[in-house]
This record gives sequence, structure tokens and C-alpha cells, in this order.
Amino acid sequence: MRIELTRRMERTFTDLQARHGRKKSEFCLCEGVRCCSEVLASPAVADVALAVVSEKLKSDIPGLQQLPLAEVADEKLQKLSGTVTSQGILLLVKRPSTDADQAVVCRDPFVLAVDKLGDPGNFGTILRTAKAAGLHEFWYTAGSSDPYAPKVIRSALGAQFSMVLREFPDLETLCAAAGKKGFKNIYLTDPHTGESCFECAGLFDKSVVVIGSEAHGIGSEAAGCRVTIPMPGNFESLNAAQAATIVLFEHVRRVTSRRG
Amino acid sequence: MRIELTRRMERTFTDLQARHGRKKSEFCLCEGVRCCSEVLASPAVADVALAVVSEKLKSDIPGLQQLPLAEVADEKLQKLSGTVTSQGILLLVKRPSTDADQAVVCRDPFVLAVDKLGDPGNFGTILRTAKAAGLHEFWYTAGSSDPYAPKVIRSALGAQFSMVLREFPDLETLCAAAGKKGFKNIYLTDPHTGESCFECAGLFDKSVVVIGSEAHGIGSEAAGCRVTIPMPGNFESLNAAQAATIVLFEHVRRVTSRRG
Repeated sequence: MRIELTRRMERTFTDLQARHGRKKSEFCLCEGVRCCSEVLASPAVADVALAVVSEKLKSDIPGLQQLPLAEVADEKLQKLSGTVTSQGILLLVKRPSTDADQAVVCRDPFVLAVDKLGDPGNFGTILRTAKAAGLHEFWYTAGSSDPYAPKVIRSALGAQFSMVLREFPDLETLCAAAGKKGFKNIYLTDPHTGESCFECAGLFDKSVVVIGSEAHGIGSEAAGCRVTIPMPGNFESLNAAQAATIVLFEHVRRVTSRRG
Repeated sequence: MRIELTRRMERTFTDLQARHGRKKSEFCLCEGVRCCSEVLASPAVADVALAVVSEKLKSDIPGLQQLPLAEVADEKLQKLSGTVTSQGILLLVKRPSTDADQAVVCRDPFVLAVDKLGDPGNFGTILRTAKAAGLHEFWYTAGSSDPYAPKVIRSALGAQFSMVLREFPDLETLCAAAGKKGFKNIYLTDPHTGESCFECAGLFDKSVVVIGSEAHGIGSEAAGCRVTIPMPGNFESLNAAQAATIVLFEHVRRVTSRRG
């Protein structure tokens, strides 16, 4: 359905580039061909309010023509975009709930959680990798990146639109909620101490595995079993997204090897 | 040893921010407290020509006082820096060789190689993770990021200064060189086809494991066994750095679990 882009719509886009504007908005912004394709192809379809494309967009993205769709000059799209070189498509999407108490039953064998992970690129990469590993939920504490900030959406390729995300005020509240939901064990990844993640038998048995921020790790007061990723090269700590990836695909390995 | 920063030295720093300037220079630029600390702590000590610190730098970095060291105003350092907010320290380091034929014997059980990996953040993260996983060499083809570009050095936390890097003109040449060095098997990671990386017995047995670029993958004409990372979530492909991380730590898992 072709529509005209109004000034008010334009304003909505530019507001969403800033943290302050996002806080007040019920929308979020999804950008780029791969990311928008994923969002439109996602089975639990994201609630897309509006699509804006450049007249120069070449890709034919399935589902696009059924949306309220505005075609604009390339310069105009560039102005609405948060990236240096826009890829010719923007979606305005209803911001999903991140309420910790939302009424969805989590059927994942374990939950991956991040504590105060402030780097948007890492946050998005972890979401994308968690989705690829087959998880349906993702938990995080306040002080982390906003999962619906444009940069996080781009890094995650829109994975957040087909997952249930829960935000908790702090790690203690997150752990208490985990217990109530039947996730009995808390594992805290630690660069130095704990059982090897490759040998910990209960790591994915109705548990929550917490990844700390790269700068601060997980507070020493947090209660849970420490697990560590062996690091023969003895070089610094791993990037938070790499640590999460190793844990996620250790789970994939155990599940897929059991079958074989 | 305290020195004065000359105009010529300043020019060397600003030249290194641009690709063109880097091509002509025998130096590279290392920035930030964690990265510079790693470089100075590295056992195969990098050849540091000059350190510039801000008068506001608080950290006491071991080895710094033994270098030719210029202390400058914070605004001046910010001008020399490639980052939006400088961390108060820059090192000018002699650029190590990336000659494919350099005479060092590779004693790693396998080699990780990337083919035309152009994203500097991914390239650096892979180097950092390879170093953490215990590798001493890293191979790449032309068309990849410059491993000594400032952004790659920051992402790698300076891992490139304590590894041997070899650049090959293309994947064919790389594979031919591998054979001559005794690395008999070539494995090409593929998002869709091939044996699971978790079940491939020979994956790390004097082999080269190649990671393609995210945009283009590995050319279909390349000769080698395809291996794949199982992806239960069926979501897009993995980010190249995540794929490399999974492969690297599958090796760590096999080595550390064998011991147990």
C-alpha cells in the first residue's frame, strides 16, 4: 500500500536515533536489507507500522509490498537513516515488550543472560548468535544496551523480533525470577576460576548462564556456580560476545552430538 | 627516557590513520591502555619506537618508562588519536612482517586462515580469539583488512604483535603453501554443507581451517573438505568472528578434555 511520508513520520524516524527519543517512543527502527528481510521473514511476525524505501532500492524483499510503504529520494532516506551509508530501506516497528513478567512460558533448556553489557555491537551479536543456537528467550539486566536501539538491531540482524526478551533491574532479581520459573541453577562465567564449561555436566540443565560485561565482569557478591572457558593462550580475557558464543555452541555441540 | 614530540613525529601519527599513509609507512599505531599494556607485556616484545601519553594518563603501564616517551596536553593527544575519545596513550610500533615466506617454523597443530575478510572489527576479534586459544600463527588472503590498521589493532588488543602473520595473494596460493609446510588437509567452513565441526575427527590434525568473509563466503571453486557449524535456530549465517570462535574453541575443548 503506497503512502506519502508526512513530516510527522519523518520526525518519528529522527527521534529514534537518540536515546532520549527512543525512551518516549512506542516504536523502534530497523535498517538495512538483510536485517529488514529477516524481520519480515520472521515467523512471529514483527508489528511493522511503516516501511520507507529509497527509489534506488534494488532488492525485492518478500512481504514489503503488503506494508504501508513510502518511496522517497535517496537523499531523504539517508537523512532518516542512522548509518553513514544507508542501504535503502527502513522499517518502523512497534517496540516489543521487555517486561520481565510477560506471560510467555520459556521452553528453552537453559537461559543465556547478560549482566550490564553496555556495548551495542556485542549485545546485538550475542542476540543473533543465541537465535542461531536455537534459543527463544534472552534475559538482561538494566545498565545493558537498549536491545531496540538501531545499532543493536543491526548487529543482531533483527533477531530480537522473534525472541522473548526480559529486562531485570539487577542480577539478584534475575536469579530470583529464574528460580520461580524452574531454572534451578545459576552459572556465572568467570575468566579465571570455576569448572571448565566443556566439562560442567549441569551447565544446560534448566539453568541460567550469565555473561558479565567485559569491563566489569560479574560482581563477586553474585551467588552461583562459577564456570570458566579454558584459555591456553593466556591472553587477556575473551570478548563478551566470544564468551557467549562458546557457551551457546557448547550447548549445540552436546545436543547435536547426542543425536549422532 | 623523556623526549619532545617533534612536528615530524606528529605527522607520522596522523599519516597512519589513513590507508594511503599506512601503505608507505614502516610503522603502525597502537592505542588505548589495555592494548598498549598487552603490547608492552608481550613476550616477543614488539619493536616500539615511541610512546606518547597525555598528561592526564593515570595508569602506570609496566615498561613505559623505558621507552622514548613524550608527554603532551590531552587536546594534542586527542588530535593524534584515531578514536573519538582517546584513552591517553599511543605507541608507534615498527610494523612486523606479513611476508608469506618468512622463515619461522609453525608448530601449531592447525592453522586458522581467513579469506578476504574485510571487516576490521571482525578481523581483530578473530586475531584476539586465536591468540587466546593458544595459536601462534594466523594466515589471511589479500583483500582482507590490513592487520596493522589502528582499528584492527584495537579490536585484537595487540594480539598481532605476538603472533606470526602471513599474507597470501589468494586462497589457492595459501593452500599450496600449506601443503609444503606439512599441513596436509584443507577444511573450508560453509554455512550449509559439510561434516559437523563437532564431529570431524581430522579437523585439527595438521590442517588449515579457512573462514570466508561474511558477505561472500568461500568461493565454490576452492578445493578442500567442507565443514559446517550446526545451527538449530536456522537463522541467517553466523558472523565470521563467531564462526571462527566456535572452531577455535572446539579445538581448545578437545585438547583440554583429553587431559581430564
